Amino acid sequence: MFKEKFKNLQQMVEEELHRILDVQEKPEIIYEAMRYSVFAGGKRLRPVLCLSACELLGGDLKKALPVACSIELIHTYSLIHDDLPAMDNDDLRRGKPTNHKVFGEAIAILAGDGLLNLGYEVLIRHALENPEDYEKILKAANEIATASGCKGIIGGQVEDILSQNTELTYEELKYIHEHKTAALIEASVCAGAHMAGASEKEVELLREYAGLIGLAFQIKDDILDVIGDEKTLGKKVGSDREKGKFTFVNIFGVEKSQEMVKELTDEAIKILDTFGERAQFLKDLSNYLIERVN
Amino acid sequence: MFKEKFKNLQQMVEEELHRILDVQEKPEIIYEAMRYSVFAGGKRLRPVLCLSACELLGGDLKKALPVACSIELIHTYSLIHDDLPAMDNDDLRRGKPTNHKVFGEAIAILAGDGLLNLGYEVLIRHALENPEDYEKILKAANEIATASGCKGIIGGQVEDILSQNTELTYEELKYIHEHKTAALIEASVCAGAHMAGASEKEVELLREYAGLIGLAFQIKDDILDVIGDEKTLGKKVGSDREKGKFTFVNIFGVEKSQEMVKELTDEAIKILDTFGERAQFLKDLSNYLIERVN
Repeated sequence: MFKEKFKNLQQMVEEELHRILDVQEKPEIIYEAMRYSVFAGGKRLRPVLCLSACELLGGDLKKALPVACSIELIHTYSLIHDDLPAMDNDDLRRGKPTNHKVFGEAIAILAGDGLLNLGYEVLIRHALENPEDYEKILKAANEIATASGCKGIIGGQVEDILSQNTELTYEELKYIHEHKTAALIEASVCAGAHMAGASEKEVELLREYAGLIGLAFQIKDDILDVIGDEKTLGKKVGSDREKGKFTFVNIFGVEKSQEMVKELTDEAIKILDTFGERAQFLKDLSNYLIERVN
Repeated sequence: MFKEKFKNLQQMVEEELHRILDVQEKPEIIYEAMRYSVFAGGKRLRPVLCLSACELLGGDLKKALPVACSIELIHTYSLIHDDLPAMDNDDLRRGKPTNHKVFGEAIAILAGDGLLNLGYEVLIRHALENPEDYEKILKAANEIATASGCKGIIGGQVEDILSQNTELTYEELKYIHEHKTAALIEASVCAGAHMAGASEKEVELLREYAGLIGLAFQIKDDILDVIGDEKTLGKKVGSDREKGKFTFVNIFGVEKSQEMVKELTDEAIKILDTFGERAQFLKDLSNYLIERVN
């Protein structure tokens, strides 16, 4: 039941992303480079969270779909730029050579820029084409734009870069992860809620839920980097250590980190109780995130 | 009269950009890096064109101001990324060290990302805060987003990068310049027109006008790179040749290129006749662009 629904939502996202990106225009190389990273095997977690939050509140999934996809485009841009030689200098992502390894640094930078911009093109056109939903779409877009900017992903990435090879306190590490990872996960859930016309109270409850699973998600990533399986993971185990990245596992060890993931997820799921039975899929999804192996 | 008005509009833009960027938040370095390039002495041509087009059609300049500034933020991001070692590898811009020379490559990439994102944050918040102007702002945002994406600046930059050290035909060179430079100049004028509630016909006339001055602007840039004064220009004369960039001067020589600039500008100004006396400032601005020395 859960798996089937997850797959259906992923499929919806996949098809819409193809509609957006299967462009046959000059210059072909930039569309090819953007498609390479967008269709590199991502789990579409953020768009699925967006669609699920919309559905939880009785919204129209078709209306939320372009919003969900804009988030995946922006998420993918952030991965391409993070992998660049001047940043994390990663050669592999999801078991494939990173964008700049295939297309060169210049095109990789531009493919990232192109995806960030395309995310906003999709949001703006969606609002223009659906004047009756102006406000919902703009509220969703505002969540996404804030989470993607210097108060979100970019701020987190700056602190991450600046703190390489430094021992961090729990608070400092939490800042990085809340900005680099949790912010866009929160925005995904809240954007979906806005698309369903959520009340302020509903949005804030879901923001709290998403903040908790966002942090749990990142701690789980830190754990997988230590004890994961290279093949399943699609990248080298221990790459955080190699890059001088300080992680939750450094502070707390594997076992305590696993407990934290469980506790954060349980707390998140408790919030969902407010929404009754309709929240079952989001609950299952939250548990799936703990158990994932990549 | 012209100079005073130009200065007043520049001043309006300057103050609004400070309001947007004078943020005292963590991580400080990213705001510092963004401010460094935004306040590096740009002429604010695009925002001034946006405001002038709005005024020409009787619109409210205050409402157009955030839109005008979002264009300058996005323009500045494109300059920072163009200057990167992986792209044009420029050390100087407007007589100052380029962003990556001062802040390093990682922060320069992120400052560019931050400015692109901030441009959209400004547009989206402006629309949310002015529900009575939703449609105008979204139409303006759509012009900007299209011009900034792969059908505009990014597409032009890709072709520019791919064609280094290649001899180009007139058509190929025109493609690059129309996308890399003229597209955002067109979007600036059209966005300003939308903010005044322009009719489709008015927008199309102004788009034609802006396409012509956009091309003239780039040919003038090519000329200045050959015969300009290094001090006034703020960069080395002959840098196009050094970087293996093919220019209008390569195809037509200086004299014929100068004639083209004059012809394109005259044609552009003729279009403005349709708008009567109110178009005087835009006409003067078009002529100023021919005569500029940097």
